[in-house]
Formats: sequence, structure tokens, C-alpha cells
Amino acid sequence: MKLEMICTGEEVLSGQIVDTNAAWFANVMMEHGIEVQRRVTVGDRVEDLVAVFQERSQHADIILVNGGLGPTSDDLSAEAMAKAKGEPLVENKQWREHLEQWFSQNNRVMSANNLKQAWLPQSAIMVDNPVGTACGFRVKLNRAWLFFTPGVPFELKHMVREQFLPFVQQEFGINAHVALNKILTFGHGESLLASKLEPLTIPAGITLGYRSSMPHIEIKLFARGDAAIAQLPAITEQVKSVLGAAVVAENKPTLAEEIHSKLYRSGKTLATAESCTGGLITSQLVAFPGSSSYLHHGLVTYSNESKVKVLGVQPQTLDDFGAVSIPVVEEMAKGARELLDSAFALATSGIAGPDGGTEEKPVGTVAIALATRNAVYSQMVKISGRSRELVRSLSAAVAYDMLRRELNDEAVIVDYSSIKRYPK
Amino acid sequence: MKLEMICTGEEVLSGQIVDTNAAWFANVMMEHGIEVQRRVTVGDRVEDLVAVFQERSQHADIILVNGGLGPTSDDLSAEAMAKAKGEPLVENKQWREHLEQWFSQNNRVMSANNLKQAWLPQSAIMVDNPVGTACGFRVKLNRAWLFFTPGVPFELKHMVREQFLPFVQQEFGINAHVALNKILTFGHGESLLASKLEPLTIPAGITLGYRSSMPHIEIKLFARGDAAIAQLPAITEQVKSVLGAAVVAENKPTLAEEIHSKLYRSGKTLATAESCTGGLITSQLVAFPGSSSYLHHGLVTYSNESKVKVLGVQPQTLDDFGAVSIPVVEEMAKGARELLDSAFALATSGIAGPDGGTEEKPVGTVAIALATRNAVYSQMVKISGRSRELVRSLSAAVAYDMLRRELNDEAVIVDYSSIKRYPK
Repeated sequence: MKLEMICTGEEVLSGQIVDTNAAWFANVMMEHGIEVQRRVTVGDRVEDLVAVFQERSQHADIILVNGGLGPTSDDLSAEAMAKAKGEPLVENKQWREHLEQWFSQNNRVMSANNLKQAWLPQSAIMVDNPVGTACGFRVKLNRAWLFFTPGVPFELKHMVREQFLPFVQQEFGINAHVALNKILTFGHGESLLASKLEPLTIPAGITLGYRSSMPHIEIKLFARGDAAIAQLPAITEQVKSVLGAAVVAENKPTLAEEIHSKLYRSGKTLATAESCTGGLITSQLVAFPGSSSYLHHGLVTYSNESKVKVLGVQPQTLDDFGAVSIPVVEEMAKGARELLDSAFALATSGIAGPDGGTEEKPVGTVAIALATRNAVYSQMVKISGRSRELVRSLSAAVAYDMLRRELNDEAVIVDYSSIKRYPK
Repeated sequence: MKLEMICTGEEVLSGQIVDTNAAWFANVMMEHGIEVQRRVTVGDRVEDLVAVFQERSQHADIILVNGGLGPTSDDLSAEAMAKAKGEPLVENKQWREHLEQWFSQNNRVMSANNLKQAWLPQSAIMVDNPVGTACGFRVKLNRAWLFFTPGVPFELKHMVREQFLPFVQQEFGINAHVALNKILTFGHGESLLASKLEPLTIPAGITLGYRSSMPHIEIKLFARGDAAIAQLPAITEQVKSVLGAAVVAENKPTLAEEIHSKLYRSGKTLATAESCTGGLITSQLVAFPGSSSYLHHGLVTYSNESKVKVLGVQPQTLDDFGAVSIPVVEEMAKGARELLDSAFALATSGIAGPDGGTEEKPVGTVAIALATRNAVYSQMVKISGRSRELVRSLSAAVAYDMLRRELNDEAVIVDYSSIKRYPK
């Protein structure tokens, strides 16, 4: 079965919006064992749409068409499909009634434009959209089924999961049982991870892939078929065991989410004192609902005065060692933790760049500390040749990893092959 | 002249990475007055690449091909182009020498794989890449010039600016003088902005467009030709005058950047006290180099205890009015400002959701205050039907806008048609 995607819309074609729908769709299909083989992006001209429908329907078996189902004059997917097929648009009574009901229930006046959304190519089979005013539809042309979906991401996702996937599985007899495990790593490059995993025998039906999403590298184990799925847990454990401390989470996209779920479940509280990371650690955690249950506060003490006044860092320590130093970051962590007797505090102080570096402490030098009720752990890392943004996100990841290891009762500080550490 | 783009690579096709190169390229071309008419995305199979080169070269005049120039076995663009053209790959001596030099200067051993990057289709014209090991090249097939560029974003951008654009302008005699002004608005919907601008007479050669990038709507004035460019300043002023307080910046992508440049230039200092925005205001500012010159600290006082202990909010105020209230957010702003006698302090306290709302204070209720050395300004807004992420980013934008207006000596609080305000 050959699957393709057609993305429509001037905004997508002209780069005014980045096409995240396309990436999401391909990813979801991949996780169901189905590959998208080509993607064509066109604007809002009827003749372009007609041409691409006619052309691609000769090559693909099924084509997901995204966008152009809205009520405005530049939403032309149904009209173009009717032209490509050489048939008229016909009003779908069922969807018209649905629209009338929807607008009256929501106390809104339906404009004539909205009625347009009920007009489909004559041979189209309507596809329900319980979360929007644009119904989907599918039409057979040449060898292909063209399956039309709304451009609104939320509506697209709903329709793909509830309607498109079942249709594809039924129509093409695809019932590949597939499963995916994702292993999140931190602190080591892809070539090193790959060389460690090379000696492993990966069972037939399982493929191993890498995805770099800074500051992490994710390892994907994709199993196709029941026999392979049965072997997935064992090979996942083998991969984790070979990679050891490089593995920081399983089936979570970031370390921040891993820390959030651990703290949320544990009931243990956290304070942060950030300098160079500038609120990144705090705001990444606050992004998760429920973070207020464990996060006492995040103190971005950007100036030296603030480190003294808010966190109680000793002016003498700042004078003796400078703001970017182990003693200062330890006092920052202790100070932030003690204010509300939080279970933990994370602190960072560093030079994010592009300016502010010295010979002794170049850009990318970052001191990081974790304070608990019993101890303070700290290290000074050197992240060279990276942008301001990456220095900040790598520093945040090191801080999270220290806390993660503490929560697991493991040694707090480990070596990362891709991040240098200064001797204390 | 018909311009198309071909994006190659399994990672892009399969959705493992979102194709930001495509959006960037289309956007840049648009700003030079040239439209991308179609975009095709294919994977790393030679036969797919050959087919798409042969097919699209019959329709387009120029095609930017992105990706597949690297040293590994799945980088197949040159090989596929040679096949499509029916000619052999030939080693380009100039690039081979360049590679040898580059590796020896960088004290690195060149692998046999890297040499592959010097092999181009026989009829190809090499295109220099001063910032990477993959040279570009261009080949004429059917009616089209196919112009091959590296997938690394930094290298692509360099090559498009330095080589592709001049080539297109020379080859196709396109020398349209174009200019673009971007006006950033906040707090009003696109339909309202459009209805206000409708009566304006837009001079010939100038087009007016809207781009929604939450929490902002950007208005683009695009002028093509010298006559239109000459009229751009006047029409820009008219648009700004019609929109009044809705305009928050010109040729800046966000309010955060506008605030950063204003504070950076003014030398006035800032403190923030964030609750529901959770470090968003602070981290957006810290993202800009130089922010340490004005940002004293950002105190994310997520818990009530922290509001009392760090900011000096009165426990009685919290008891009487609740954390999400005008009196509390005013005390937060005052407290944050006074700690280091900053010129300004911004404070937020609200219910970002999805849980935590009450009948009196539903999700989306956010109190926002600005403290100066002489006064405290505050308002309570109601952002309903929005995600946690949007509640936070809209609240941050309201806070920035209050400070922006204060810095401009304007009334700090204005009405936003798209954001409701509670009576005090």
C-alpha cells in the first residue's frame, strides 16, 4: 500500500507557518507501521489543487489531504476535488443539519459561508468531525482514495485517530501489530551510543533508530509483528543495561517531564535558584499542570545583589570566588532550599554567552548544585562551542539529571562524554 | 518564473524532524518577491529521488533541492541527479582539494566517505559552501535548473543568501526591489484589525497581510518596486495611526524583544515576581544577550509561603483576598521591586489551568501588576477558553505591554478587545 500526503494552504507553502501537522501525521503513521512515501505541499489555487489530485492519484493508493475545508473563500479543497473528478458539488443534508444544530446550540448565527462546508463532491463519502464545523470526506480517483481532513491540528488529530487509521487498516487489510519503546539519553553523542549498541543482536522484526532532539538523543525500538513485540521488553532492557547512566527516561520526551512526574508522585518539594539558566528550569516544570504541588519557588537571581539579598549568599564568597563558582552555587542552592525548607533545591550560575567569558572561565562555564536536607552536591561543567540557548538547555538538563539520580538513590554526579567537567 | 522546492530525507518525511528549512526558505523568497509554487518532500530512496527530479523539472523553471549532500550512505542527491540526467558522477578536483585542506587545517583525518562529497553529476556547476564540507551544485534538466543545497540549516541559509538568490536574480532577470515592514499588534483579533484597516487606500504595489503568531498578530506591508517602496513609510504610519494602542512594536517579532531593547537602551532595571506565568517573563528576557545589564532578578513565587517569605506579601492579604487578587499581586510587585530598588517590577498571579478554577475565579483569571518607584498599576484579566500555555503567554504579554506603555509615558492600562478585564 502506497501512502502519500498532500498539504494545502498558502500559509504552509509560503512558510508563514511551519507544517507541524505533516510531521505529526508521518510520525503517527510510522508508529503504526505505515510509511508516508511522498508529501506534496501546494497553495490555494484551484488549478494547482486539481493538478496535484489528478497526478498523485495515479501513483498512490491512499492520500491524506490536509487543509482547505474551512468556510472562507480560500478554502477550496472540495471544489478542486469535484473538478478533478469531473463531478458537481452536492449538499450533504446530514452535515447541513449538523451545522444548523451546532450553531443553534452554541447560540451563534450561522453565516452563508458556513453552509459551504456541507457541500461535497457528488461521489464523496462524508467523514464525521465531532470536534469542528468542517466535516471530512473521502473520494476515489484513479487508483487512490483521497481522504480530506481539516487543517486545525486538534481536528486533524482526532480524525486521523478515529477515522483515517481504522479506514486504512480495514481497506488495505493492514493490521500489523506494532509497538514502540523510546529510551531517552543524555550526555553522550550518537556515535558513542551507536558504537556501544553495535554488538547487540537486535531480533528480527525490531528496528533501532536514533533521534537527536537537543539536549537529548532518543533511541527508538520499533517492533513489527507479534513475535517481535514479544521480544521488545527484553531487548529494551539490554539496551538500557548497555547504556547505563546515559539513560535518563523511558517513553518520556524530556528530562523535565521525567522530573515532573517523579516529584509529583513523591510529594517531595523543590526550590530553584537560577542564574544563567534564567528561569528555564522553573518554566519547563511550570508548563506541566500539577507542578504547583511540589514547586515552592524558582528564584532567578540574575544579579549579584539579588544572590545576596534573596538567597543569602555571602558577599565575601562572591568576592573570593566570583559568581560563577562552586562555593557561590552551593550557597545559592542552600539558600533557596532553606527559605521554605524544601526537600531539594537546584542552582545554576554560569556564563551563557556570547559575551562575558574570561580566559579562566570561558563562555559555557556553568556551576551547578543540588542541595538536599543532608548534603550539597556540585560540579562545574564546560560546554564549549555552543549557542547561548544550548548552554542554557544543557545546563538545565545537567541539573535535572543530578536531581533524578538523587531521587533514584544513585550517585548524584556522573561523567558525560559530551560535556567536560572542571576539577573542583 | 516558476519556483519549486524539493525536500529530501527520511527524517523530514517521517516526521522525526519538523521541516523548518522549508518554512524559512519560502519566507525568505517571499520577502524577495518570489513565490514558491509547490513543495515536494521525499525520502532517501534513489528511485524516488530520480522520479521527482525528472517529474518536477518538466514543470518548474528553478527548483531548490535541500538535503542529501552529506558523507553517509543515505545521502543520495548527487547520485540520483546523475541518474535522472543519464550521466556519470565525476570528481570535482576543486572541492576535493578544498576538503583535503579543510581536514588538515582542522587536524582531522578525512575518511573515504568525505571524499564522496566531491563527486558531482558530470554537467553540474559547483556552488561554493564556505561554512561546511558539502558543496552545493546546480544542474539543468528539462526546463529547470535544479539547485542543490545542504540540509544543515546554517549552511542552507548561507548558500541561499550568497548564491541562490543572486543566481535567480541574474538568470531570470528578477531584480524586483522589495521592502517589508512588520507591525506587531496585541490584544485584538484579526477580523477587528482588518475592519479597521479596510477603509485605508493601500497604494499600488503594496500588499497588506496578516500573520497570527500567538499571542500576537503581525501585519505585513510588502512593497514591490521603487514607487511602492517610496510610499511604504507613509502607509506604515497610517496603519499605525488607525490601529493606535493595538500596535506594540515595529519590525520586532515579539513584545519580549521590544521590552528587552527598550530596557537595554534605557539602563533602567527590572525585577519580576511571577506566579502563574512561572518564569516565562524572566526566561524570555534572559534569552537575549545583554539582559543581565537590567534584570535584577525574577522571583517565581509559586507557593503562598514563598510569596510571604521572599516578597514580603502579608499573610493577611492572602487570607482576605486569595493569591489570585489585585491586592496580592500589587504586594508582589512592590516586594520584588523594593528588594533591590529596581526601577520597575512586574508581577503575575493567576489560574493557568486546566484545574484550579472556581466559580468566582475561573481558569484564565490572572492578576497583573506593574510597580514603579512612584506607583503601582494593576488589572485582573479573564482569558477564557485557552490552554494553560496560552493563558501564560497572554498574561506575560499583558505584563510586557503595561511596562512598554509606562516606558513610553502612556497610560499603563488599556482595553484589549480580545481580552476581558474584571472590574476592580
